Amino acid sequence: MTTTPDTAVPPDQVQREQELLDRVVRSFDACESPRLKQLMVALVEHVHAFVRETRLTDAEWRTAIDFLTRAGHITDDVRQEFILLSDVLGASMQTVNVNNVAYEDATEATVFGPFFVEDAPHVELGGDVSFGAPGQPCWVEGTVTDTDGNPLAGARIEVWEADEDGLYDVQYDAARRSARGHLFSDADGAYRFWGLTPTPYPIPDDGPVGQLLAAVGRSPLRASHLHFMVSHEDARTLVTHVFPEGDPIGERDTVFGVKQSLVKRFEHQPAGTPTPDGRRLDVGWSRVRFDIVLAPAPRP
Amino acid sequence: MTTTPDTAVPPDQVQREQELLDRVVRSFDACESPRLKQLMVALVEHVHAFVRETRLTDAEWRTAIDFLTRAGHITDDVRQEFILLSDVLGASMQTVNVNNVAYEDATEATVFGPFFVEDAPHVELGGDVSFGAPGQPCWVEGTVTDTDGNPLAGARIEVWEADEDGLYDVQYDAARRSARGHLFSDADGAYRFWGLTPTPYPIPDDGPVGQLLAAVGRSPLRASHLHFMVSHEDARTLVTHVFPEGDPIGERDTVFGVKQSLVKRFEHQPAGTPTPDGRRLDVGWSRVRFDIVLAPAPRP
Repeated sequence: MTTTPDTAVPPDQVQREQELLDRVVRSFDACESPRLKQLMVALVEHVHAFVRETRLTDAEWRTAIDFLTRAGHITDDVRQEFILLSDVLGASMQTVNVNNVAYEDATEATVFGPFFVEDAPHVELGGDVSFGAPGQPCWVEGTVTDTDGNPLAGARIEVWEADEDGLYDVQYDAARRSARGHLFSDADGAYRFWGLTPTPYPIPDDGPVGQLLAAVGRSPLRASHLHFMVSHEDARTLVTHVFPEGDPIGERDTVFGVKQSLVKRFEHQPAGTPTPDGRRLDVGWSRVRFDIVLAPAPRP
Repeated sequence: MTTTPDTAVPPDQVQREQELLDRVVRSFDACESPRLKQLMVALVEHVHAFVRETRLTDAEWRTAIDFLTRAGHITDDVRQEFILLSDVLGASMQTVNVNNVAYEDATEATVFGPFFVEDAPHVELGGDVSFGAPGQPCWVEGTVTDTDGNPLAGARIEVWEADEDGLYDVQYDAARRSARGHLFSDADGAYRFWGLTPTPYPIPDDGPVGQLLAAVGRSPLRASHLHFMVSHEDARTLVTHVFPEGDPIGERDTVFGVKQSLVKRFEHQPAGTPTPDGRRLDVGWSRVRFDIVLAPAPRP
């Protein structure tokens, strides 16, 4: 479905509207940054096209102003309604696409999301990043290589995820650190850690973005996922997720983050099954292999 | 200047970006309101086109999120940064154009602005709406008629303006009421009142919108103006301004509100010149005639 200009608009009215747009575009003529000028002109052209094509009413304009105002007032250090808005419109995912053009068989990127923190604890290879967060244990292992298959040793691997109740640590308390951590790949590019089996959860939906999703008949649920950010001096930093096969949400992920290449089998292991690190857990657990291929670092 | 898609984008990448857009558009298929669905699809198409045409970087996306966040945090009951943003992008004026298609010789509309209040004091015809606000006295008179020239008696005329320091009453104190009021046209459709000679002033520029204007080399100044909102049961409500001839800002008005049909001569009168209401002021004053023609009420 595409929108088309209202054909009932008389020619002199079309001219009046175009003259205004032209005047607004000219108002950026003195901008000294060519890039900023390009961005502002493109923004103005699309905003005016939206108003003209939809014949936006005064009441609808006021509703938009009110929506942005409420989004601004609910946003604080740990709640970011504008990122949620960008996410549910697919704008975040499209920005990811634009900035991560596919390179050979490099692992695909997906959305960053609002829940990364800089100071996640360090864990040794094979360590547990859950730090007591509730959920089914999950053994995660794989390698980090370049697109020629060469191992990337010492790659920094940041992982973070929601607990089985669908909440990230910072949603309980901005100072809490659990179900997140960072580790480094070994000399063979290999990595391994204990985390939690991902489960679906709703994005924060008690604000204007949640009200918008309800008004358009969309679910606030995200597909189950485990966040990765993998960086190495010789490679393009990768921000991505791994998604469990057979997830009930899948392509209906409310932020459009699912890519089939990132969907992996999480194999369920009954209680008592020997673990890769030689233990027996009295609960069921799962395991997944996620091999990560990094594109070359962008030219400086 | 128009933006064009980056021709360096490989075809499979173009397809990947289009598939994401198509998926986002389909996410609104269950929306029960055809109008809301139309608005959301148009919004998504323009937002994605903006990201794809400009090849928006991650850093630019974060800058946009930060801008909206700061705009939300500076916005309160008397400061509305999102309306200012809409104004300086010309989106407010374009919405005015779309909702006030020219009708014969009806007076043209312009922006509403963020400074109207519902409870402005009533003044009799010939009364003074300045209520002590500093500025040069200005005698304003005219008629309110329909497009056939018939007088419209009892039209409600709301007027509001900044003082000579460029500030509206509510910018000093949300409870202050000065340089604003409402009156009613007489049996001949005539009106008259004392106000202040309008002067140029900057929009509030100590926030993100002011920083944006500075970054693109634009002035925050509005052309001098006096606000009118004129309503009558038989007519389309008119929201407009009258602009003094020879204003130094004129078409560079930062919210693009100036229309030539709304520019009128404010005649300067030396101190001592007899006033229309038979007084002699010991200061200079000005006078302007602004005849208002209202379009018919929209069909219910």
